Amino acid sequence: MEELQFHHSLPIQLRFNDVDKYGHVNNTVYFSFYDLGKSEYLKTIRPELDEEQEGVVIVHIETDFLAQIKASEPIAVETATTAIGTKSFDLVQRAVNTATGEVKCICRSVLVAFDVKLGQSKPLDEAWIEAICRFEGRNLRKKRS
Amino acid sequence: MEELQFHHSLPIQLRFNDVDKYGHVNNTVYFSFYDLGKSEYLKTIRPELDEEQEGVVIVHIETDFLAQIKASEPIAVETATTAIGTKSFDLVQRAVNTATGEVKCICRSVLVAFDVKLGQSKPLDEAWIEAICRFEGRNLRKKRS
Amino acid sequence: MEELQFHHSLPIQLRFNDVDKYGHVNNTVYFSFYDLGKSEYLKTIRPELDEEQEGVVIVHIETDFLAQIKASEPIAVETATTAIGTKSFDLVQRAVNTATGEVKCICRSVLVAFDVKLGQSKPLDEAWIEAICRFEGRNLRKKRS
Amino acid sequence: MEELQFHHSLPIQLRFNDVDKYGHVNNTVYFSFYDLGKSEYLKTIRPELDEEQEGVVIVHIETDFLAQIKASEPIAVETATTAIGTKSFDLVQRAVNTATGEVKCICRSVLVAFDVKLGQSKPLDEAWIEAICRFEGRNLRKKRS
Repeated sequence: MEELQFHHSLPIQLRFNDVDKYGHVNNTVYFSFYDLGKSEYLKTIRPELDEEQEGVVIVHIETDFLAQIKASEPIAVETATTAIGTKSFDLVQRAVNTATGEVKCICRSVLVAFDVKLGQSKPLDEAWIEAICRFEGRNLRKKRS
Repeated sequence: MEELQFHHSLPIQLRFNDVDKYGHVNNTVYFSFYDLGKSEYLKTIRPELDEEQEGVVIVHIETDFLAQIKASEPIAVETATTAIGTKSFDLVQRAVNTATGEVKCICRSVLVAFDVKLGQSKPLDEAWIEAICRFEGRNLRKKRS
Repeated sequence: MEELQFHHSLPIQLRFNDVDKYGHVNNTVYFSFYDLGKSEYLKTIRPELDEEQEGVVIVHIETDFLAQIKASEPIAVETATTAIGTKSFDLVQRAVNTATGEVKCICRSVLVAFDVKLGQSKPLDEAWIEAICRFEGRNLRKKRS
Repeated sequence: MEELQFHHSLPIQLRFNDVDKYGHVNNTVYFSFYDLGKSEYLKTIRPELDEEQEGVVIVHIETDFLAQIKASEPIAVETATTAIGTKSFDLVQRAVNTATGEVKCICRSVLVAFDVKLGQSKPLDEAWIEAICRFEGRNLRKKRS
């Protein structure tokens, strides 16, 4: 993870009820932060995309909770693609305290392209692959996948 | 309120994150309870309704928060219609502790029929009016409205 | 409402799941927006307040839903106090589209001061009353209440 | 996974706003289902536990989303412990349609014991280990961990 560059960062507006009775942001709420970061990331790399026609869905998530988030902390979600296969691509996201730089949580997810009308996944077309590589500034195609 | 009969009651499954840092169910969460109670109430009185075609939307809500709800309390939402006009009907809902009978919160709302396809409200048709009166066991039509 | 001035406005970051299956921000979610607006409003007028010791709780809410909010709309919550009694104060809040100025929803609420340690409400002390009047720029004390 | 027995199953009450604009339960909401399943599981195996003193926190989650959940589906969360180390234990959870048996999602998580007062994790004591093994009906202690 050391060398991974994040070119996309989204400040998160915490809500009162994100915090549970222990005074920390509840674990389950992190995933709406990642969801929001992912949505903005995808809009940034493919602003022309028609969400009524095409989208991406998450098929796998792996998350490490490293430190609790307090209600008063300034939090952003950072998002980067790390690899692209023929049917899916891999995202890494981090929730960080933007004042201290502390990484609170890391989330790796696998996404597939989704045909909204048909309601099923589909191969990742070249438009996606090129847009991602352009945004990330490097070739992320997996040798074989 | 004394004499109002509730013929519909829905037990609510509290979620961990419904509870805020003060250890009580957060005020904002009550409205998802009422929403759930309302949905089940409407399904009960009009099971044949096609939700893709027709629904009801809330245009007005008045709520009195009488007592806090703790995470461990057994809670149900009670729902009854109190009056029916030509364009809207009035709902009263209560969040109650089913073990003690304590009323935690009372919510009065005004609902209008909604055409999902057109995306706009429409007059309350006779099917709605009859179904509600039948369920509640009395004539709830307002004299004039 | 015509003449009411709002000196506090908070842009709201919409989350993907705020939007329900009809493509609009769900009614129940508005209350977390108001909650957030209220929290920031109170922090602005009384930044010195220790939330572990003292807070305010909502005892009554009245809300008019005027228009639906779509996922793509820029939304802010505006907050103002309109009257202060000996035990409570009245808040008016609006959810507005900041691009068009359209008012989506109006919420009037009654709040009481709350002793967090004792877990019960208490009279509104002079510190609250003065801070609110100073922020709003006028005397909001009710003649009798 | 074939042979894994789930001795704990919790029916989930879906809420209207669990469903997103695509008409499916939003991915992020699954985690509140798992959270609820976990809480009830832990209360079942250690009913005497004082939540103000001691709890467990999740440090790692891995989730496979296998199929979408529609608003009308009857869903339960199944929970089982699969291994116990000296500092953590491993949970497997599934979201299933209870009518068809279809597994919608599988979640593997790693939990550590947590001292609420000190706000930090602590070794898993023998009370936890015994309670889990008794409930699951087999010795789940890892040889070395």
